[in-house]
Amino acid sequence: MQFTKMHGIGNDFIMVDCLGEDGRALAQQARAQAVALCDRKFGIGGDGVILVLPGETVAYQMRMLNPDGSEAEMCGNGIRCFAKFLYDRGHGKDQAELPVETGAGLLHVAVQAGADGKAATVRVDMGEPVLIPALVPTTLGEGESPVVSLPIEAAGRTLLVTAVSMGNPHAVIFVDNVKDYPLEQVGPFVESHAAFPKRTNTEFIEVISENETKFRVWERGAAETLACGTGACASVVAGVLNGKTGRRVLVHLPGGDLDIEWSEADNHVYMTGAAADVFEGNWVG
Amino acid sequence: MQFTKMHGIGNDFIMVDCLGEDGRALAQQARAQAVALCDRKFGIGGDGVILVLPGETVAYQMRMLNPDGSEAEMCGNGIRCFAKFLYDRGHGKDQAELPVETGAGLLHVAVQAGADGKAATVRVDMGEPVLIPALVPTTLGEGESPVVSLPIEAAGRTLLVTAVSMGNPHAVIFVDNVKDYPLEQVGPFVESHAAFPKRTNTEFIEVISENETKFRVWERGAAETLACGTGACASVVAGVLNGKTGRRVLVHLPGGDLDIEWSEADNHVYMTGAAADVFEGNWVG
Repeated sequence: MQFTKMHGIGNDFIMVDCLGEDGRALAQQARAQAVALCDRKFGIGGDGVILVLPGETVAYQMRMLNPDGSEAEMCGNGIRCFAKFLYDRGHGKDQAELPVETGAGLLHVAVQAGADGKAATVRVDMGEPVLIPALVPTTLGEGESPVVSLPIEAAGRTLLVTAVSMGNPHAVIFVDNVKDYPLEQVGPFVESHAAFPKRTNTEFIEVISENETKFRVWERGAAETLACGTGACASVVAGVLNGKTGRRVLVHLPGGDLDIEWSEADNHVYMTGAAADVFEGNWVG
Repeated sequence: MQFTKMHGIGNDFIMVDCLGEDGRALAQQARAQAVALCDRKFGIGGDGVILVLPGETVAYQMRMLNPDGSEAEMCGNGIRCFAKFLYDRGHGKDQAELPVETGAGLLHVAVQAGADGKAATVRVDMGEPVLIPALVPTTLGEGESPVVSLPIEAAGRTLLVTAVSMGNPHAVIFVDNVKDYPLEQVGPFVESHAAFPKRTNTEFIEVISENETKFRVWERGAAETLACGTGACASVVAGVLNGKTGRRVLVHLPGGDLDIEWSEADNHVYMTGAAADVFEGNWVG
């Protein structure tokens, strides 16, 4: 099985081109073997398998399989890889913005090309943040929206959390020094805190200036990861709600940088960042 | 850079063919980029890079680079991959035994082909075990050799260890139930115990019968791993010294099985096990 390995600021994916005649069979094979493909010792290794498929209502569809074989609704770092994969193969080059069918509905991506004519960065319209507590979901704020820097007790500390959903729940916490913050100790307690009935991703943010932050994340069901696209979006929404940042922020994640803008014009959050090829391969297994 | 990804019972390697005209340049590139190549997110990912080189005194030479860029002397699982890599490309097929130059001297490998004509398993002559305490090295036994089931105190337990070097130090401990054994708690304390001045790998062995064992390992400088070839060899030497196993044992490691024989004829330990292709690739980075 031919594949391309790519990453979006350290979130890495096995891309399978299912646009050709054998696309349906390839997609079936990749679905059936997603667990084996993602295995980092016996397989190719990756945070997911991304199927590049023909769409039903638009030209292209993205499907993503998690390392446990389940289907992911969406992934901000994955869709940038998806957009670069298409662009570098000549798809949708004439369109300023490309609609993509995803498990989370139709999303729009825009590629910025580099000097070599290949996609360098990709901007993704991540939609509107959800601030209604019951929809995040969180029990904080007694239904009053939004939940901005309300206290919870976790790991023997009082933490001030801002609750934002970008399709998945985020608890954003501002800290003075993110590098030395005991994420491994605090993260699991916030993740499983009673205030978040579906558990939560937790972002720890150090504000450098109104347009620059440092970011670390404890991902729900994972642990600390190098990058979380929706988390970066949520952190900027929280920054604005707390008066700590402007609407456009360069977010330094452990795996790389994301440029996040929460647009005043349409209330959408726009994420811009790099995607990169790592290697082309032919899987024997 | 063209490469082949292989594994030996879960110990995985990036194989780079440096036998051609551009071999010297390729080897230099791989050495310089070993850290990037082994990175599991931004690179190909692997437990090491294996260079397939022409030998100086014999036809072939194996060099292995660790994920931190340093050079490894030898690796039992790696050399099986090395042998299969050569055999499947038509090298040394006419020889019952192939000598290979390694960082640990000249080693001999013998390939058994499968029904498809490709290498299925590889037997490696791992040399003689070293049982002299000062050479393991261990301070146990007060110089009396060998060190067989002598007690140490670690992690609040009294553990009976048998000390064997297969070029690297091993402390072998027999347990009743290896699956449920608290390896993560005990392993680090044995690794750093004062009785092992260069630290030690620690093997936990459950004897099923005189010719079958279950194996888990805490590797020095690593943690629990799926497989350790020298550790499997050491475990059978320890089994014989303790009267717990015969000289030929099927060892079930977490990543797969190894057939280990401590030969009465020449005192060498022979390790036989599988090696497998995973994918062929072309690295872009």
